[in-house]
Amino acid sequence: METLSLKLKPKIKEVKIYSGTGAIKETSDLVNNVYNKKVVISNPTVWNNWEGYFKEYIKDFELFLIPDGERCKNFKTVHKIYDFLVSIGATRKTLLIAFGGGVIGDITGFVASTYHRGIPIIHIPTTLLAQVDSSIGGKTGYNMREGKNLIGSFYQPDFIISDPLFLDTLPQKEFLSGLAEVIKAGCIRDTKLFCLIEKDLEKIIGRDKQVLSKIIMRAQKVKINVVEKDEREEGLRAILNFGHTLGHAIEVQKKWKISHGFAVAAGMAFASFLSYKESILSEEELLRVLKLFKKIGYTLKYNLDKSQLSNVLLKDKKKKDEMVEWVLLEKIGKAVFGVKIDIKNIVHRISEFEHYLKSRKNFIS
Amino acid sequence: METLSLKLKPKIKEVKIYSGTGAIKETSDLVNNVYNKKVVISNPTVWNNWEGYFKEYIKDFELFLIPDGERCKNFKTVHKIYDFLVSIGATRKTLLIAFGGGVIGDITGFVASTYHRGIPIIHIPTTLLAQVDSSIGGKTGYNMREGKNLIGSFYQPDFIISDPLFLDTLPQKEFLSGLAEVIKAGCIRDTKLFCLIEKDLEKIIGRDKQVLSKIIMRAQKVKINVVEKDEREEGLRAILNFGHTLGHAIEVQKKWKISHGFAVAAGMAFASFLSYKESILSEEELLRVLKLFKKIGYTLKYNLDKSQLSNVLLKDKKKKDEMVEWVLLEKIGKAVFGVKIDIKNIVHRISEFEHYLKSRKNFIS
Repeated sequence: METLSLKLKPKIKEVKIYSGTGAIKETSDLVNNVYNKKVVISNPTVWNNWEGYFKEYIKDFELFLIPDGERCKNFKTVHKIYDFLVSIGATRKTLLIAFGGGVIGDITGFVASTYHRGIPIIHIPTTLLAQVDSSIGGKTGYNMREGKNLIGSFYQPDFIISDPLFLDTLPQKEFLSGLAEVIKAGCIRDTKLFCLIEKDLEKIIGRDKQVLSKIIMRAQKVKINVVEKDEREEGLRAILNFGHTLGHAIEVQKKWKISHGFAVAAGMAFASFLSYKESILSEEELLRVLKLFKKIGYTLKYNLDKSQLSNVLLKDKKKKDEMVEWVLLEKIGKAVFGVKIDIKNIVHRISEFEHYLKSRKNFIS
Repeated sequence: METLSLKLKPKIKEVKIYSGTGAIKETSDLVNNVYNKKVVISNPTVWNNWEGYFKEYIKDFELFLIPDGERCKNFKTVHKIYDFLVSIGATRKTLLIAFGGGVIGDITGFVASTYHRGIPIIHIPTTLLAQVDSSIGGKTGYNMREGKNLIGSFYQPDFIISDPLFLDTLPQKEFLSGLAEVIKAGCIRDTKLFCLIEKDLEKIIGRDKQVLSKIIMRAQKVKINVVEKDEREEGLRAILNFGHTLGHAIEVQKKWKISHGFAVAAGMAFASFLSYKESILSEEELLRVLKLFKKIGYTLKYNLDKSQLSNVLLKDKKKKDEMVEWVLLEKIGKAVFGVKIDIKNIVHRISEFEHYLKSRKNFIS
């Protein structure tokens, strides 16, 4: 036997994120002049709202609309897009443009990563969640009955165009859902971002473009910084799951009827409480988190079936034996990951959290 | 608008290829001790032949068999494997072992690249074609009705175990089909390999293990060298398609009833003739290629419907306008790629080739 060796030195990739008001206007040449053939993947809601504006800047494209919502993020939709691409003779040089929220981005990203073994894609995210979180970092995927994003890939877009203008048509609930991910970015890695949100909360809720642009960019920088250090989620990238461990369990128990950001907010509230109970976060900082959430109107605690909860938490991708791994806060702006806590302890802490919220009612409201 | 930048420096990856008699024996510790959970994907033919031997060396695994043949290389089979992985609780650390020929390798590679956004895989190729070609280089994929490997990814295995022992049960036709890819490696990049095959043809056909190991390793080195220089087929890797342009057209016209290697051999014969006619290959070298093929028993020329041929060639992924891009030979051991030739010229050359073969009958046989 002989040992041969194939050494691969993948190229350095730079993904530009054009962020701020007017981004689509200022980058339209880049989109129109570089690519031969363009296919826009969007959904009816986004398209109805923005068709006119979009067409002012992006020229000569084919359009394929897929239905709204997480329910359609499955292999049937993926194959409908493949069929469409085949029918119009898309080649390995055809550009896909994902124009929509997280579902559009994830599913279009997956198609781009697998059609002809990979074709170019750019993201034009239209929701706050997609702008600050899901469009950045190259995660793509679709759901199986047994789990979300069970099938997927890591695939980077050529660039991302993030324009806060598109948030104008976002329902308030969806806006607040996205805001939770902005706050998450502050909690795990940007103290100043968290302070900015505390200070300018009213303007943010009122969608003041200037303040909004500022906090979006800061959140994007957090995401960029984490992904640059750990693209494939082998370590640090886990901190982006702050609030997602319990958040995911809430989504499962409530059968996905709660917005992702609201579930994550409740998850962050509990993870902050857990951080305090594990003596790594001060009570003062815990209360700042809870106060901000209360002000925004996030539900701090959902009633959960405790035995079902254990199952979901242990079934979680992050499970190891009977321990559940958590992302906790050392302070607002600094997270630690991989903290193992026994599932029995967690169930106990959830009951404790309920009592804690009652006893601190006056401080939090 | 501000421009943010995400810079990704992917890790250097080294894929070891353990090649030669006894490879599976010598690497069994590596397979058994490093991974938590193992899933073997194979087909009934390979498994019936090799179950006993395999189990001597690889321990504690789950088995999933998929039907034989190119016809099953589709998304239904992919989803059956996903379902199986979910049912046994496969995680992102589960190892897939692709144990079989090209179809098993391509489809298992695709599943590995997409389940949980990528899980580890090793290849244990059991056909000559898979050992020298398809298992090396990270191409994965499955077919759609409209085309072969239309959906796929680039995904490197942790390592490859290539043992010529497995070729013992290969039907002669399939062995000769694989041999065409070995000859291809010689033609495009290894003069000495081509000479070795000329010299030791009888031993090779008789499957002499020592000679076989030697030519397999040389062909693997050619593939490694090309992939190292161009993993994503942005340039040089195209030379691996030598003989595949017309070969593919033959496969389509003959409705995939001809073995891949036989179609490629006829494609290489014609591409060599074309190289001669374009005045870049000497007639002497052309005749060496044709003589070797004749000796092995490859059909040098298939009767093709010329108008249908144009359609297929122009529909080919490599098409640009009315020109078809070819990989041609400068000499045995050196290929050039991206040579554009007008489709009308090609059709004419195919008729010419027929006459040429008749006129040189005595030299070739």
